[in-house]
Amino acid sequence: MRPSGRKLDELRAVSIETGFTKHAEGSALIKMGDTHVLCTATIEDRVPPFIKGSGLGWVTAEYGMLPRATNTRMRREAAMGKQGGRTVEIQRLIGRALRAGVDRSALGERQITIDCDVLQADGGTRCASITGGWVALKLAVNKLMKAGDVVSDPLVDPVAAISCGIYAGQPVLDLDYPEDSEAGVDGNFIMTGTGKLIEIQMSAEGSTYSRDQMNQLMDLAEKGVAELVEKQKAATA
Amino acid sequence: MRPSGRKLDELRAVSIETGFTKHAEGSALIKMGDTHVLCTATIEDRVPPFIKGSGLGWVTAEYGMLPRATNTRMRREAAMGKQGGRTVEIQRLIGRALRAGVDRSALGERQITIDCDVLQADGGTRCASITGGWVALKLAVNKLMKAGDVVSDPLVDPVAAISCGIYAGQPVLDLDYPEDSEAGVDGNFIMTGTGKLIEIQMSAEGSTYSRDQMNQLMDLAEKGVAELVEKQKAATA
Amino acid sequence: MRPSGRKLDELRAVSIETGFTKHAEGSALIKMGDTHVLCTATIEDRVPPFIKGSGLGWVTAEYGMLPRATNTRMRREAAMGKQGGRTVEIQRLIGRALRAGVDRSALGERQITIDCDVLQADGGTRCASITGGWVALKLAVNKLMKAGDVVSDPLVDPVAAISCGIYAGQPVLDLDYPEDSEAGVDGNFIMTGTGKLIEIQMSAEGSTYSRDQMNQLMDLAEKGVAELVEKQKAATA
Amino acid sequence: MRPSGRKLDELRAVSIETGFTKHAEGSALIKMGDTHVLCTATIEDRVPPFIKGSGLGWVTAEYGMLPRATNTRMRREAAMGKQGGRTVEIQRLIGRALRAGVDRSALGERQITIDCDVLQADGGTRCASITGGWVALKLAVNKLMKAGDVVSDPLVDPVAAISCGIYAGQPVLDLDYPEDSEAGVDGNFIMTGTGKLIEIQMSAEGSTYSRDQMNQLMDLAEKGVAELVEKQKAATA
Amino acid sequence: MRPSGRKLDELRAVSIETGFTKHAEGSALIKMGDTHVLCTATIEDRVPPFIKGSGLGWVTAEYGMLPRATNTRMRREAAMGKQGGRTVEIQRLIGRALRAGVDRSALGERQITIDCDVLQADGGTRCASITGGWVALKLAVNKLMKAGDVVSDPLVDPVAAISCGIYAGQPVLDLDYPEDSEAGVDGNFIMTGTGKLIEIQMSAEGSTYSRDQMNQLMDLAEKGVAELVEKQKAATA
Amino acid sequence: MRPSGRKLDELRAVSIETGFTKHAEGSALIKMGDTHVLCTATIEDRVPPFIKGSGLGWVTAEYGMLPRATNTRMRREAAMGKQGGRTVEIQRLIGRALRAGVDRSALGERQITIDCDVLQADGGTRCASITGGWVALKLAVNKLMKAGDVVSDPLVDPVAAISCGIYAGQPVLDLDYPEDSEAGVDGNFIMTGTGKLIEIQMSAEGSTYSRDQMNQLMDLAEKGVAELVEKQKAATA
Repeated sequence: MRPSGRKLDELRAVSIETGFTKHAEGSALIKMGDTHVLCTATIEDRVPPFIKGSGLGWVTAEYGMLPRATNTRMRREAAMGKQGGRTVEIQRLIGRALRAGVDRSALGERQITIDCDVLQADGGTRCASITGGWVALKLAVNKLMKAGDVVSDPLVDPVAAISCGIYAGQPVLDLDYPEDSEAGVDGNFIMTGTGKLIEIQMSAEGSTYSRDQMNQLMDLAEKGVAELVEKQKAATA
Repeated sequence: MRPSGRKLDELRAVSIETGFTKHAEGSALIKMGDTHVLCTATIEDRVPPFIKGSGLGWVTAEYGMLPRATNTRMRREAAMGKQGGRTVEIQRLIGRALRAGVDRSALGERQITIDCDVLQADGGTRCASITGGWVALKLAVNKLMKAGDVVSDPLVDPVAAISCGIYAGQPVLDLDYPEDSEAGVDGNFIMTGTGKLIEIQMSAEGSTYSRDQMNQLMDLAEKGVAELVEKQKAATA
Repeated sequence: MRPSGRKLDELRAVSIETGFTKHAEGSALIKMGDTHVLCTATIEDRVPPFIKGSGLGWVTAEYGMLPRATNTRMRREAAMGKQGGRTVEIQRLIGRALRAGVDRSALGERQITIDCDVLQADGGTRCASITGGWVALKLAVNKLMKAGDVVSDPLVDPVAAISCGIYAGQPVLDLDYPEDSEAGVDGNFIMTGTGKLIEIQMSAEGSTYSRDQMNQLMDLAEKGVAELVEKQKAATA
Repeated sequence: MRPSGRKLDELRAVSIETGFTKHAEGSALIKMGDTHVLCTATIEDRVPPFIKGSGLGWVTAEYGMLPRATNTRMRREAAMGKQGGRTVEIQRLIGRALRAGVDRSALGERQITIDCDVLQADGGTRCASITGGWVALKLAVNKLMKAGDVVSDPLVDPVAAISCGIYAGQPVLDLDYPEDSEAGVDGNFIMTGTGKLIEIQMSAEGSTYSRDQMNQLMDLAEKGVAELVEKQKAATA
Repeated sequence: MRPSGRKLDELRAVSIETGFTKHAEGSALIKMGDTHVLCTATIEDRVPPFIKGSGLGWVTAEYGMLPRATNTRMRREAAMGKQGGRTVEIQRLIGRALRAGVDRSALGERQITIDCDVLQADGGTRCASITGGWVALKLAVNKLMKAGDVVSDPLVDPVAAISCGIYAGQPVLDLDYPEDSEAGVDGNFIMTGTGKLIEIQMSAEGSTYSRDQMNQLMDLAEKGVAELVEKQKAATA
Repeated sequence: MRPSGRKLDELRAVSIETGFTKHAEGSALIKMGDTHVLCTATIEDRVPPFIKGSGLGWVTAEYGMLPRATNTRMRREAAMGKQGGRTVEIQRLIGRALRAGVDRSALGERQITIDCDVLQADGGTRCASITGGWVALKLAVNKLMKAGDVVSDPLVDPVAAISCGIYAGQPVLDLDYPEDSEAGVDGNFIMTGTGKLIEIQMSAEGSTYSRDQMNQLMDLAEKGVAELVEKQKAATA
């Protein structure tokens, strides 16, 4: 029934290649099917003004798409002179999601910036960014721990994200672009490796959904996140 | 237990004053306690390029806060030269939420813009904007119907929104600012008058939540939205 | 002869409601007929760099219009990415006018920002902003004096403003929008409670005026400002 | 008593060099003492959208200052990414002033843009821009008349401007920078060659003025403008 | 003598992987040592206004760097709200260089946009962009020819670019970042497969160079470009 | 053969008028035929952050064109809200070129900004800016030396620039606008008074050139720069 032939609760093929670029303190190229996102982590010895002197660290994120990551070319945001509303919304989500999984006191007063740049898009780029971004973050933190700059691991529980939606009347896991553009109801679930919820964003466009459907989607999300967390653990072992 | 002395499932005092300004096709000043939002609806006989000729209408929204709506003065976005990320995110949410409750074919090829300007803020401005915005939208549509420009009502089921969160370990309804700034988990539920879900945004900052808690919050939201819909109906009767 | 039926030297109905919003150190909603402006005053313990260490205070102003304050919707300046020329000109005028009535040495090294936001427009918004802005400023200064932070009143003489113009060949006081859009000559007079001049801006569009006419307009302005000052005194007593 | 040794009612040395640049339809370098402004006029066969089809012409103006026209270097507005409030205010004034002296119906449906660029500044740049700008405008209109594109002269009465102010307690004409930076009261008078008023902008900073003083300044202005109009006539004869 | 141990006239290891992304009409990931640039080509059936109706085609380019392509993180240009001077200069160069090798009449009235995004930087990104950009362009043109939309090949002679400079007193080919940051004289040579010159940019920072040195650099460039052209031909065969 | 009747290796009439404006530490109006550029030098006792404390000075440049310096009016960059790509490229070139001729250690830790503003354009504005900019720079440095702030002359060898190109199949010196707009190959040579090379930018648009032609152009450039340097020496003697 799904255009890709996948089962309703089946993820796309997932791969995470660490060390894809050499300068960043952590880097990973995550592929969820044809969605490819390059995630890098940058450590800096400064924090935003509002937490200076608090002893707490900060994790933030920026998101971008190469102009021809999509089927038709989108205008380059740098050339337009601003980040679009969708971009700003996504990068705020990624930062908030990753921070929820960080013990900021254990991290200490430093900032880690996660850059998520979509090289190729086929739906689900924000979820891939969170899942891959956590891997880049983990690699950077591992460096800090190896160097003795951080003593107790601030990343005890992985953070991963997956989209779910109602496609052709059925709840499905991990929508690709053909599904995403048809689904009247879809959203993203961000969870930890131990199954706790961090963020739910479930919206309808020209449609509504029931509480029953919401529960079915949440079941799918739990299954999908669990599988992604296994991939994250393997990549950062 | 709540700073305001309210019960866990108790809304703030709600009032909706229609016709607050005279030029708009619809206008309403909604007060949720000390949160006051002026909502206006503007009808235009044009639609965005991507639906031209489709016969469908469009509803969109813009959001703003007066600089001293808050406890300390915020910089004026027009003077800064751009809308902040939070503003863009909120106005996209308002537009999406209201559109979900519109029969765009019945509306016909015209656009209605809902402006939501916060005159005074005390938490929950985006929910108040959606609830009050729907009233302004309804008043504008009523004008179109009275004039015979629209024949069948495109707004069959009201749309309202309410925040919920976990404050001091308890699930609470309709957070005010003192609660909102302390809550580690909070979000917004957008629903229709018949209890269907339009959008859920539930996020944690430096915390997580369980599926049980999620269900408790959803129970609260259902109660709150039902009460708001009564107010909407009274205001637009 | 006037569209509103007013006499040539008659102001519109004037009301000033203080305390319209709760967060600001001073706030007032001024109504000049159908022109409604919300004015708030914010006190900050910092001054612009060019007077740091001088012992002098500063008063500045910002001006905005809600998108649907007018008969047809105007684009939101924050969304356009800049304040228009008219806005910048008006807010510079408001700041200059209010400063002229302030003993900056008595105020001491602090800044008061007056925000004037037009909720509904029907001509004369800049004059209403100055007159209402002075009330918000006065209320904020009263707080400083009550707290003992300021000892000698820096606002000895009120500042108010009124428009005059030549409509249908006759000099008229306090133009509303239908008059303003027809008048070839019109402008604004800013004066103090003791009848001193602060600023005159009298311009013609596609027309000219004589020195005699200028004198007649000045007579009208003196009468109008005197009446406004009474309202200001009553509101801040 | 004046720093320059001039009499109270004495203009600075005035010169107007036409044809300073070759591409513009009209150009003039006006010097008022050490204030030097290059004014050019550009004719275009299009008008702003709001008068399309009206048969009326349009005159508009833009103003700029070279970064080192002043005693200390100012940041280049193009590099800052926007025109400052003072610039916008001045160019709106120049356009409005020149338009007041134009028979827009005689001009026909075309636009003339006056660019006023300050090469060297010593006070009074906006007045010099108006006076010099009218010369550039007149030269461009002469070209249109010579070519038969315009039949009846749309510029029957010259437009010129001069500053006046109260310096060291005395009303003085044509303030240079040392006077301007000291004067608590100063402003600009824009008049026609036949003595009609177009615009008065008289403001006080940290001071006020009486109606008597206003009349004295107006007397000075009438004398100054009359002398400038003679220079304009000579330059465009 | 060179940090990398290369001979004076030795290129870094070069690889060109075509089809790196799937949506673009042509794509190539070019690696010159540790400099990796993703180049995509987008075909559109429209041309810039200034050549509309001319029957000629257009080729243009945009350039970007991921924030952590470099050793320390650079601010994202989209977030800063504009492309920096260096970016604008480089993308203008790439477009000009590629256009020089295009028979725009054979291409027909369509536009091809080459996006060059640096995934990892180690010196020479603009040369890699030109060399890799030509490959993406060629692949896109091949598609047009295969589809019969273009009949005669508009790309008869490849375009490639290489940097040269004076490092430690010696003329060297293809500078990497450690060399580039030390060289007082360096620049770029853009040539065709048949050895014709398209563009030379040779500049000195805090240094100068002689005509003899210029000739030696040109000899190196001819050798380097010839080798790159072989790689281009292999990749697009 | 040339539109102007000049010989192939003949410069336009060159004049350099120093002291054209009075506020700058150095100023010069350079005329290369109908290309007129006003160059000013501003000395400041601060340097960019990246060389603070190094003991080295800095020279930078900004470039602008008055809107009607050209045959048809160009939009004012300040009004557009940004400097165009061409502007940014040119001002980076001017700064780099002038810096190459400065002994930054002898200059000491101060910054000199060269503003080059084109009053009238007829081709070759960037070369005129460099040649005239060096004169303004030299005059400013002379002031520093006269005042004893700089002891050893940091400008030992003048810097000048000239364009060359292939026009109607012939190598020509100092292209004016009619030649420049026809030439398929053209560029700029920046050299010192002793014949050393600083920068070469030679590009082709829709064409290519041979190494032989490159050598002929370089011969022309050497002749032209030598003549310009004589003019610079005379102006700053």
